[in-house]
Amino acid sequence: MFTYHIKVEYLGTNFVGWQIQKNGLSVQEVLQKGLSNFLKEKITIIGSGRTDAGVHAYEQSAHFKTKKKIDDKDAFLNSINFFLNKYPIAILYIKKKPKNFHARYNANKRIYKYFIINRETKLVLEKDKAWHIKKKLDFKIMKKGAKILKGTHNFSTFRASSCESNSPIKTLKMAEVKKQKNKIILTFESKSFLQQQVRSMVGSLKYLGEGKWNLKDFKKAFLSKKRSMCAPPAPAHGLYLYKVKY
Amino acid sequence: MFTYHIKVEYLGTNFVGWQIQKNGLSVQEVLQKGLSNFLKEKITIIGSGRTDAGVHAYEQSAHFKTKKKIDDKDAFLNSINFFLNKYPIAILYIKKKPKNFHARYNANKRIYKYFIINRETKLVLEKDKAWHIKKKLDFKIMKKGAKILKGTHNFSTFRASSCESNSPIKTLKMAEVKKQKNKIILTFESKSFLQQQVRSMVGSLKYLGEGKWNLKDFKKAFLSKKRSMCAPPAPAHGLYLYKVKY
Repeated sequence: MFTYHIKVEYLGTNFVGWQIQKNGLSVQEVLQKGLSNFLKEKITIIGSGRTDAGVHAYEQSAHFKTKKKIDDKDAFLNSINFFLNKYPIAILYIKKKPKNFHARYNANKRIYKYFIINRETKLVLEKDKAWHIKKKLDFKIMKKGAKILKGTHNFSTFRASSCESNSPIKTLKMAEVKKQKNKIILTFESKSFLQQQVRSMVGSLKYLGEGKWNLKDFKKAFLSKKRSMCAPPAPAHGLYLYKVKY
Repeated sequence: MFTYHIKVEYLGTNFVGWQIQKNGLSVQEVLQKGLSNFLKEKITIIGSGRTDAGVHAYEQSAHFKTKKKIDDKDAFLNSINFFLNKYPIAILYIKKKPKNFHARYNANKRIYKYFIINRETKLVLEKDKAWHIKKKLDFKIMKKGAKILKGTHNFSTFRASSCESNSPIKTLKMAEVKKQKNKIILTFESKSFLQQQVRSMVGSLKYLGEGKWNLKDFKKAFLSKKRSMCAPPAPAHGLYLYKVKY
Protein backbone atom coordinates (compact mmCIF):
# COMPACT_ATOMS: atom_id res chain seq x y z
CA MET A 1 0.00 0.00 0.00
CA PHE A 2 1.12 3.52 -0.80
CA THR A 3 0.16 6.66 1.12
CA TYR A 4 -0.55 9.87 -0.78
CA HIS A 5 -0.95 13.41 0.46
CA ILE A 6 -3.27 15.64 -1.58
CA LYS A 7 -4.16 19.35 -1.42
CA VAL A 8 -7.67 20.27 -2.46
CA GLU A 9 -9.40 23.54 -3.41
CA TYR A 10 -13.18 23.80 -3.22
CA LEU A 11 -16.10 26.18 -3.31
CA GLY A 12 -18.21 25.07 -0.35
CA THR A 13 -21.48 26.79 -1.33
CA ASN A 14 -23.41 23.74 -2.50
CA PHE A 15 -21.84 21.07 -0.29
CA VAL A 16 -22.99 19.83 3.13
CA GLY A 17 -19.36 20.34 4.17
CA TRP A 18 -16.15 18.35 3.94
CA GLN A 19 -17.31 15.25 5.83
CA ILE A 20 -19.54 12.53 4.34
CA GLN A 21 -23.14 12.89 5.56
CA LYS A 22 -26.43 11.29 4.71
CA ASN A 23 -28.28 14.56 4.04
CA GLY A 24 -26.42 15.69 0.96
CA LEU A 25 -23.28 15.80 -1.12
CA SER A 26 -19.95 16.38 0.64
CA VAL A 27 -16.51 17.21 -0.76
CA GLN A 28 -15.12 13.99 0.74
CA GLU A 29 -17.77 11.88 -1.03
CA VAL A 30 -17.03 13.43 -4.43
CA LEU A 31 -13.30 12.93 -3.95
CA GLN A 32 -13.64 9.34 -2.71
CA LYS A 33 -15.89 8.38 -5.63
CA GLY A 34 -13.55 10.07 -8.09
CA LEU A 35 -10.42 8.42 -6.72
CA SER A 36 -12.14 5.02 -6.33
CA ASN A 37 -13.31 5.10 -9.95
CA PHE A 38 -9.97 6.25 -11.18
CA LEU A 39 -7.84 3.80 -9.18
CA LYS A 40 -10.39 0.96 -9.47
CA GLU A 41 -10.31 0.16 -5.75
CA LYS A 42 -12.23 1.49 -2.77
CA ILE A 43 -10.46 4.63 -1.53
CA THR A 44 -11.01 6.28 1.86
CA ILE A 45 -9.86 9.86 2.31
CA ILE A 46 -8.83 11.35 5.64
CA GLY A 47 -8.97 15.14 5.77
CA SER A 48 -6.92 17.46 7.99
CA GLY A 49 -10.22 18.35 9.59
CA ARG A 50 -13.85 19.03 8.77
CA THR A 51 -15.19 22.19 7.28
CA ASP A 52 -18.86 23.14 7.74
CA ALA A 53 -21.45 23.43 4.97
CA GLY A 54 -20.72 26.53 2.89
CA VAL A 55 -17.09 26.92 4.06
CA HIS A 56 -14.54 27.13 1.22
CA ALA A 57 -10.95 25.92 0.94
CA TYR A 58 -7.99 27.37 -0.88
CA GLU A 59 -6.02 24.37 0.33
CA GLN A 60 -7.54 21.58 2.36
CA SER A 61 -5.14 18.68 3.02
CA ALA A 62 -5.99 14.99 3.03
CA HIS A 63 -4.39 11.58 2.62
CA PHE A 64 -5.43 8.22 1.22
CA LYS A 65 -3.96 4.76 0.77
CA THR A 66 -3.89 2.81 -2.50
CA LYS A 67 -2.39 -0.39 -3.89
CA LYS A 68 -1.39 1.46 -7.03
CA LYS A 69 1.74 3.52 -7.36
CA ILE A 70 1.04 6.89 -8.98
CA ASP A 71 4.14 7.56 -11.06
CA ASP A 72 3.04 10.33 -13.38
CA LYS A 73 1.63 12.98 -11.05
CA ASP A 74 0.76 15.47 -13.81
CA ALA A 75 -1.19 12.85 -15.76
CA PHE A 76 -2.95 11.82 -12.54
CA LEU A 77 -3.91 15.39 -11.66
CA ASN A 78 -5.11 16.11 -15.20
CA SER A 79 -7.26 12.98 -15.29
CA ILE A 80 -8.75 13.26 -11.83
CA ASN A 81 -9.53 16.97 -12.26
CA PHE A 82 -11.13 16.23 -15.63
CA PHE A 83 -13.31 13.68 -13.85
CA LEU A 84 -14.14 16.29 -11.16
CA ASN A 85 -14.93 18.88 -13.82
CA LYS A 86 -18.61 19.23 -13.00
CA TYR A 87 -17.84 19.91 -9.34
CA PRO A 88 -16.23 23.05 -7.89
CA ILE A 89 -13.40 20.89 -6.54
CA ALA A 90 -9.83 20.49 -7.75
CA ILE A 91 -6.88 18.45 -6.52
CA LEU A 92 -3.95 20.86 -6.70
CA TYR A 93 -1.13 18.60 -5.57
CA ILE A 94 -0.27 14.97 -4.85
CA LYS A 95 2.80 13.56 -3.14
CA LYS A 96 3.81 10.10 -1.93
CA LYS A 97 4.44 10.06 1.82
CA PRO A 98 5.76 7.53 4.38
CA LYS A 99 3.04 5.01 5.27
CA ASN A 100 2.42 6.53 8.71
CA PHE A 101 1.66 10.01 7.31
CA HIS A 102 -1.66 11.27 8.65
CA ALA A 103 -3.30 14.43 7.25
CA ARG A 104 -5.04 15.17 10.53
CA TYR A 105 -2.63 14.07 13.25
CA ASN A 106 0.57 15.28 11.57
CA ALA A 107 -0.69 18.78 10.76
CA ASN A 108 1.17 21.31 12.85
CA LYS A 109 -0.26 24.53 11.48
CA ARG A 110 -3.68 25.45 10.15
CA ILE A 111 -4.48 28.85 8.67
CA TYR A 112 -8.02 30.13 8.15
CA LYS A 113 -9.07 33.36 6.48
CA TYR A 114 -12.39 35.13 6.91
CA PHE A 115 -13.62 37.80 4.47
CA ILE A 116 -16.07 40.56 5.38
CA ILE A 117 -17.32 43.12 2.86
CA ASN A 118 -18.42 46.22 4.71
CA ARG A 119 -20.71 48.24 2.48
CA GLU A 120 -24.36 49.28 2.09
CA THR A 121 -25.14 47.47 -1.15
CA LYS A 122 -25.72 43.74 -1.60
CA LEU A 123 -22.75 41.71 -2.83
CA VAL A 124 -22.40 40.85 -6.50
CA LEU A 125 -18.85 39.82 -7.46
CA GLU A 126 -18.25 38.43 -3.93
CA LYS A 127 -21.67 36.81 -3.44
CA ASP A 128 -21.46 33.61 -1.31
CA LYS A 129 -17.76 34.34 -0.81
CA ALA A 130 -17.78 36.93 1.96
CA TRP A 131 -19.93 38.09 4.87
CA HIS A 132 -21.89 41.16 3.86
CA ILE A 133 -22.14 43.64 6.75
CA LYS A 134 -23.94 46.91 6.08
CA LYS A 135 -23.25 48.76 9.30
CA LYS A 136 -19.91 50.59 9.23
CA LEU A 137 -17.44 48.57 11.30
CA ASP A 138 -14.75 50.13 13.49
CA PHE A 139 -11.73 48.38 12.05
CA LYS A 140 -9.29 49.62 14.70
CA ILE A 141 -11.21 48.17 17.63
CA MET A 142 -11.48 44.85 15.78
CA LYS A 143 -7.68 44.85 15.48
CA LYS A 144 -7.45 45.42 19.25
CA GLY A 145 -9.90 42.58 19.90
CA ALA A 146 -7.90 40.20 17.71
CA LYS A 147 -4.76 41.08 19.69
CA ILE A 148 -6.51 39.90 22.86
CA LEU A 149 -7.21 36.52 21.25
CA LYS A 150 -3.59 35.93 20.26
CA GLY A 151 -1.60 33.50 22.42
CA THR A 152 -2.48 30.53 24.62
CA HIS A 153 -5.94 30.73 26.16
CA ASN A 154 -9.01 28.80 27.17
CA PHE A 155 -11.28 29.33 24.15
CA SER A 156 -14.43 27.76 25.67
CA THR A 157 -16.49 30.86 24.77
CA PHE A 158 -15.73 30.25 21.11
CA ARG A 159 -16.37 26.50 21.13
CA ALA A 160 -19.46 24.82 19.68
CA SER A 161 -21.32 22.72 22.24
CA SER A 162 -20.83 19.69 19.98
CA CYS A 163 -17.02 20.11 19.95
CA GLU A 164 -15.23 16.86 20.80
CA SER A 165 -11.79 18.27 21.48
CA ASN A 166 -10.15 17.07 24.74
CA SER A 167 -9.15 20.53 25.83
CA PRO A 168 -10.46 24.06 25.20
CA ILE A 169 -6.89 25.40 25.49
CA LYS A 170 -5.43 26.44 22.16
CA THR A 171 -2.57 28.65 21.04
CA LEU A 172 -3.37 31.25 18.39
CA LYS A 173 -0.06 32.09 16.74
CA MET A 174 -1.72 34.66 14.53
CA ALA A 175 -4.94 36.65 14.88
CA GLU A 176 -4.74 39.42 12.32
CA VAL A 177 -7.26 41.91 10.96
CA LYS A 178 -6.39 43.72 7.73
CA LYS A 179 -8.35 46.08 5.54
CA GLN A 180 -8.36 46.53 1.74
CA LYS A 181 -10.85 49.25 0.84
CA ASN A 182 -14.21 47.89 2.09
CA LYS A 183 -12.92 44.33 2.52
CA ILE A 184 -11.86 43.18 6.00
CA ILE A 185 -9.59 40.14 5.98
CA LEU A 186 -9.16 38.17 9.21
CA THR A 187 -6.40 35.56 9.44
CA PHE A 188 -6.06 32.99 12.21
CA GLU A 189 -3.24 30.50 12.65
CA SER A 190 -3.04 27.67 15.17
CA LYS A 191 -1.86 24.08 15.38
CA SER A 192 -5.54 23.19 15.64
CA PHE A 193 -8.89 24.86 16.27
CA LEU A 194 -11.97 24.01 18.30
CA GLN A 195 -15.21 23.35 16.44
CA GLN A 196 -16.64 26.67 15.12
CA GLN A 197 -13.82 28.57 16.84
CA VAL A 198 -12.99 30.84 13.92
CA ARG A 199 -16.60 31.68 13.11
CA SER A 200 -17.29 32.31 16.82
CA MET A 201 -14.28 34.61 17.15
CA VAL A 202 -15.24 36.49 13.97
CA GLY A 203 -18.84 36.86 15.18
CA SER A 204 -17.57 38.34 18.44
CA LEU A 205 -15.10 40.66 16.68
CA LYS A 206 -18.02 41.85 14.54
CA TYR A 207 -19.97 42.70 17.74
CA LEU A 208 -16.95 44.81 18.71
CA GLY A 209 -16.70 46.45 15.28
CA GLU A 210 -20.35 47.46 15.16
CA GLY A 211 -20.26 48.84 18.72
CA LYS A 212 -22.59 46.26 20.25
CA TRP A 213 -19.66 45.43 22.56
CA ASN A 214 -16.76 47.53 23.79
CA LEU A 215 -13.37 45.99 24.59
CA LYS A 216 -14.44 45.38 28.19
CA ASP A 217 -17.50 43.40 27.04
CA PHE A 218 -15.36 41.45 24.60
CA LYS A 219 -12.82 40.51 27.30
CA LYS A 220 -15.61 39.62 29.71
CA ALA A 221 -17.17 37.22 27.19
CA PHE A 222 -13.77 35.70 26.37
CA LEU A 223 -12.76 35.26 30.02
CA SER A 224 -16.18 33.88 31.05
CA LYS A 225 -15.39 30.63 29.17
CA LYS A 226 -19.12 30.32 28.65
CA ARG A 227 -20.55 29.49 25.24
CA SER A 228 -23.66 31.45 26.16
CA MET A 229 -21.56 34.62 26.30
CA CYS A 230 -20.40 34.29 22.67
CA ALA A 231 -21.79 36.49 19.91
CA PRO A 232 -23.62 34.63 17.11
CA PRO A 233 -20.99 32.84 15.00
CA ALA A 234 -20.17 34.43 11.64
CA PRO A 235 -21.79 32.71 8.63
CA ALA A 236 -19.95 29.87 6.91
CA HIS A 237 -19.73 31.48 3.47
CA GLY A 238 -17.08 34.02 4.53
CA LEU A 239 -14.70 31.35 5.85
CA TYR A 240 -11.79 29.78 3.95
CA LEU A 241 -9.44 27.00 5.03
CA TYR A 242 -6.35 28.67 3.64
CA LYS A 243 -3.47 26.33 4.33
CA VAL A 244 -2.46 23.27 6.37
CA LYS A 245 1.21 22.78 7.13
CA TYR A 246 3.15 19.68 8.22
CA MET B 1 -36.32 66.49 -15.78
CA PHE B 2 -33.54 65.46 -13.42
CA THR B 3 -30.27 63.81 -14.46
CA TYR B 4 -28.80 61.10 -12.26
CA HIS B 5 -25.38 59.46 -12.31
CA ILE B 6 -25.23 55.85 -11.14
CA LYS B 7 -22.36 53.41 -10.52
CA VAL B 8 -23.10 49.75 -11.16
CA GLU B 9 -21.39 46.48 -10.24
CA TYR B 10 -22.13 43.32 -12.21
CA LEU B 11 -21.02 39.77 -12.86
CA GLY B 12 -21.03 39.53 -16.65
CA THR B 13 -21.02 35.72 -16.94
CA ASN B 14 -24.65 35.22 -17.98
CA PHE B 15 -25.30 38.48 -19.79
CA VAL B 16 -24.91 39.24 -23.52
CA GLY B 17 -22.97 42.31 -22.37
CA TRP B 18 -23.80 45.81 -21.20
CA GLN B 19 -25.71 46.94 -24.29
CA ILE B 20 -29.30 45.93 -25.09
CA GLN B 21 -29.39 43.23 -27.76
CA LYS B 22 -32.05 41.02 -29.28
CA ASN B 23 -30.22 37.76 -28.63
CA GLY B 24 -30.33 37.71 -24.84
CA LEU B 25 -30.41 39.57 -21.56
CA SER B 26 -28.13 42.58 -21.10
CA VAL B 27 -27.21 44.53 -17.99
CA GLN B 28 -28.69 47.68 -19.52
CA GLU B 29 -32.05 45.96 -20.12
CA VAL B 30 -32.28 44.73 -16.52
CA LEU B 31 -31.42 48.18 -15.18
CA GLN B 32 -33.83 50.00 -17.50
CA LYS B 33 -36.70 47.68 -16.62
CA GLY B 34 -35.91 47.98 -12.92
CA LEU B 35 -35.71 51.77 -12.97
CA SER B 36 -38.75 52.12 -15.24
CA ASN B 37 -40.86 49.95 -12.91
CA PHE B 38 -39.59 51.73 -9.87
CA LEU B 39 -40.00 55.29 -11.17
CA LYS B 40 -43.17 54.46 -13.14
CA GLU B 41 -41.93 56.12 -16.33
CA LYS B 42 -39.87 54.88 -19.27
CA ILE B 43 -36.21 55.24 -18.36
CA THR B 44 -33.30 55.08 -20.81
CA ILE B 45 -29.83 54.47 -19.44
CA ILE B 46 -26.65 55.68 -21.12
CA GLY B 47 -23.52 53.79 -20.06
CA SER B 48 -19.94 55.10 -20.06
CA GLY B 49 -19.31 52.48 -22.73
CA ARG B 50 -20.19 48.92 -23.70
CA THR B 51 -18.72 45.83 -22.14
CA ASP B 52 -18.74 42.53 -24.06
CA ALA B 53 -20.60 39.39 -23.05
CA GLY B 54 -18.89 37.82 -20.03
CA VAL B 55 -17.00 40.98 -19.00
CA HIS B 56 -17.54 42.05 -15.38
CA ALA B 57 -17.69 45.47 -13.74
CA TYR B 58 -16.59 46.63 -10.32
CA GLU B 59 -17.89 50.04 -11.26
CA GLN B 60 -19.58 50.81 -14.56
CA SER B 61 -20.95 54.35 -14.78
CA ALA B 62 -24.20 55.42 -16.42
CA HIS B 63 -26.75 58.23 -16.38
CA PHE B 64 -30.48 58.55 -16.87
CA LYS B 65 -33.13 61.26 -16.87
CA THR B 66 -36.35 61.17 -14.86
CA LYS B 67 -39.24 63.47 -14.03
CA LYS B 68 -39.05 62.41 -10.38
CA LYS B 69 -36.68 63.85 -7.87
CA ILE B 70 -34.94 61.15 -5.84
CA ASP B 71 -34.57 62.67 -2.40
CA ASP B 72 -33.76 59.70 -0.20
CA LYS B 73 -30.80 58.05 -1.92
CA ASP B 74 -30.41 55.26 0.65
CA ALA B 75 -34.07 54.28 0.37
CA PHE B 76 -33.78 54.40 -3.43
CA LEU B 77 -30.68 52.17 -3.47
CA ASN B 78 -32.22 49.71 -1.01
CA SER B 79 -35.41 49.42 -3.02
CA ILE B 80 -33.86 49.18 -6.45
CA ASN B 81 -31.26 46.62 -5.32
CA PHE B 82 -33.99 44.59 -3.68
CA PHE B 83 -35.79 44.60 -7.03
CA LEU B 84 -32.54 43.55 -8.74
CA ASN B 85 -31.99 40.81 -6.19
CA LYS B 86 -32.31 37.90 -8.59
CA TYR B 87 -29.69 39.39 -10.92
CA PRO B 88 -25.94 39.69 -10.24
CA ILE B 89 -26.25 43.45 -10.60
CA ALA B 90 -26.18 46.18 -7.95
CA ILE B 91 -26.42 49.96 -8.10
CA LEU B 92 -23.72 51.16 -5.70
CA TYR B 93 -24.23 54.91 -5.90
CA ILE B 94 -26.59 57.56 -7.22
CA LYS B 95 -26.05 61.29 -7.48
CA LYS B 96 -27.97 64.17 -9.06
CA LYS B 97 -25.95 65.93 -11.75
CA PRO B 98 -26.37 69.02 -13.96
CA LYS B 99 -28.74 68.27 -16.85
CA ASN B 100 -25.92 68.18 -19.42
CA PHE B 101 -23.99 65.44 -17.57
CA HIS B 102 -23.23 62.53 -19.92
CA ALA B 103 -21.78 59.24 -18.62
CA ARG B 104 -20.00 58.53 -21.88
CA TYR B 105 -18.87 61.91 -23.20
CA ASN B 106 -17.83 63.40 -19.85
CA ALA B 107 -15.72 60.45 -18.70
CA ASN B 108 -12.07 61.43 -18.64
CA LYS B 109 -10.52 58.29 -17.23
CA ARG B 110 -11.41 54.61 -17.62
CA ILE B 111 -9.60 51.86 -15.72
CA TYR B 112 -9.79 48.20 -16.68
CA LYS B 113 -8.29 45.25 -14.82
CA TYR B 114 -7.55 41.83 -16.27
CA PHE B 115 -6.92 38.77 -14.08
CA ILE B 116 -4.89 35.75 -15.15
CA ILE B 117 -4.42 32.68 -12.94
CA ASN B 118 -1.24 30.91 -13.97
CA ARG B 119 -1.35 27.34 -12.69
CA GLU B 120 -1.72 23.74 -13.86
CA THR B 121 -5.04 22.92 -12.26
CA LYS B 122 -8.49 24.08 -13.39
CA LEU B 123 -9.94 27.08 -11.57
CA VAL B 124 -12.40 26.59 -8.72
CA LEU B 125 -12.73 29.68 -6.51
CA GLU B 126 -11.92 31.97 -9.48
CA LYS B 127 -13.95 30.09 -12.14
CA ASP B 128 -15.44 32.48 -14.76
CA LYS B 129 -13.58 35.32 -13.05
CA ALA B 130 -10.06 34.99 -14.45
CA TRP B 131 -8.24 33.59 -17.49
CA HIS B 132 -6.77 30.20 -16.66
CA ILE B 133 -3.36 29.75 -18.31
CA LYS B 134 -1.53 26.50 -17.63
CA LYS B 135 1.80 27.25 -19.25
CA LYS B 136 4.20 29.07 -16.93
CA LEU B 137 4.28 32.72 -17.98
CA ASP B 138 7.40 34.89 -17.89
CA PHE B 139 6.09 37.73 -15.78
CA LYS B 140 9.11 39.99 -16.27
CA ILE B 141 8.87 40.06 -20.06
CA MET B 142 5.13 40.80 -19.79
CA LYS B 143 6.04 43.83 -17.64
CA LYS B 144 8.46 44.96 -20.35
CA GLY B 145 5.80 44.51 -23.01
CA ALA B 146 3.30 46.57 -21.02
CA LYS B 147 5.88 49.37 -20.75
CA ILE B 148 6.02 49.54 -24.56
CA LEU B 149 2.25 50.04 -24.69
CA LYS B 150 2.27 52.97 -22.27
CA GLY B 151 1.93 56.43 -23.77
CA THR B 152 0.37 57.86 -26.94
CA HIS B 153 0.35 55.43 -29.86
CA ASN B 154 -1.57 54.16 -32.84
CA PHE B 155 -3.28 51.08 -31.40
CA SER B 156 -4.68 49.74 -34.71
CA THR B 157 -3.17 46.29 -34.04
CA PHE B 158 -5.31 46.02 -30.90
CA ARG B 159 -8.53 47.30 -32.45
CA ALA B 160 -11.49 45.10 -33.41
CA SER B 161 -12.43 45.43 -37.08
CA SER B 162 -15.93 46.52 -36.00
CA CYS B 163 -14.54 49.42 -33.91
CA GLU B 164 -16.27 52.72 -34.73
CA SER B 165 -13.80 55.09 -33.08
CA ASN B 166 -12.71 58.04 -35.24
CA SER B 167 -9.05 57.55 -34.50
CA PRO B 168 -6.82 54.60 -33.52
CA ILE B 169 -4.61 56.98 -31.52
CA LYS B 170 -5.04 56.60 -27.78
CA THR B 171 -2.99 57.52 -24.72
CA LEU B 172 -2.42 54.77 -22.17
CA LYS B 173 -1.67 56.55 -18.91
CA MET B 174 -1.13 53.25 -17.14
CA ALA B 175 -0.21 49.78 -18.41
CA GLU B 176 0.82 47.81 -15.36
CA VAL B 177 1.47 44.11 -14.75
CA LYS B 178 1.56 42.92 -11.13
CA LYS B 179 1.85 39.47 -9.60
CA GLN B 180 0.29 38.04 -6.42
CA LYS B 181 1.37 34.40 -6.08
CA ASN B 182 -0.03 32.71 -9.21
CA LYS B 183 -2.35 35.61 -10.05
CA ILE B 184 -1.27 38.13 -12.67
CA ILE B 185 -3.14 41.44 -12.51
CA LEU B 186 -2.99 43.76 -15.50
CA THR B 187 -4.25 47.35 -15.14
CA PHE B 188 -4.86 49.75 -18.01
CA GLU B 189 -5.90 53.37 -17.74
CA SER B 190 -6.88 55.69 -20.57
CA LYS B 191 -9.38 58.45 -21.32
CA SER B 192 -11.01 55.95 -23.67
CA PHE B 193 -10.24 52.61 -25.31
CA LEU B 194 -10.78 51.16 -28.78
CA GLN B 195 -13.14 48.21 -29.13
CA GLN B 196 -11.50 45.04 -27.74
CA GLN B 197 -8.29 46.99 -27.08
CA VAL B 198 -7.69 45.65 -23.58
CA ARG B 199 -8.40 42.02 -24.50
CA SER B 200 -6.20 42.36 -27.61
CA MET B 201 -3.32 43.85 -25.61
CA VAL B 202 -3.66 41.13 -22.94
CA GLY B 203 -3.73 38.39 -25.59
CA SER B 204 -0.53 39.79 -27.09
CA LEU B 205 1.16 40.14 -23.69
CA LYS B 206 0.23 36.49 -23.07
CA TYR B 207 2.01 35.51 -26.33
CA LEU B 208 5.06 37.30 -24.90
CA GLY B 209 4.75 35.62 -21.52
CA GLU B 210 4.51 32.12 -22.92
CA GLY B 211 7.45 32.68 -25.28
CA LYS B 212 5.46 32.50 -28.52
CA TRP B 213 6.75 36.01 -29.16
CA ASN B 214 9.90 37.81 -28.02
CA LEU B 215 9.98 41.58 -27.44
CA LYS B 216 10.98 42.16 -31.06
CA ASP B 217 7.95 40.22 -32.32
CA PHE B 218 5.73 42.11 -29.90
CA LYS B 219 7.02 45.50 -31.08
CA LYS B 220 6.73 44.44 -34.71
CA ALA B 221 3.08 43.48 -34.26
CA PHE B 222 2.36 46.73 -32.38
CA LEU B 223 4.11 48.96 -34.94
CA SER B 224 2.56 47.14 -37.93
CA LYS B 225 -0.82 48.72 -37.06
CA LYS B 226 -2.39 45.67 -38.65
CA ARG B 227 -5.18 43.79 -36.91
CA SER B 228 -3.99 40.59 -38.59
CA MET B 229 -0.72 40.82 -36.61
CA CYS B 230 -2.50 40.77 -33.22
CA ALA B 231 -2.49 37.68 -31.00
CA PRO B 232 -5.93 36.18 -30.28
CA PRO B 233 -7.72 38.49 -27.83
CA ALA B 234 -7.89 37.31 -24.21
CA PRO B 235 -11.27 35.85 -23.19
CA ALA B 236 -13.94 38.16 -21.79
CA HIS B 237 -14.30 36.45 -18.39
CA GLY B 238 -10.95 37.75 -17.08
CA LEU B 239 -11.81 41.39 -17.80
CA TYR B 240 -13.25 43.92 -15.33
CA LEU B 241 -14.32 47.50 -15.90
CA TYR B 242 -12.79 48.80 -12.69
CA LYS B 243 -13.57 52.51 -12.54
CA VAL B 244 -14.76 55.44 -14.64
CA LYS B 245 -13.76 58.91 -13.56
CA TYR B 246 -15.22 62.32 -14.45
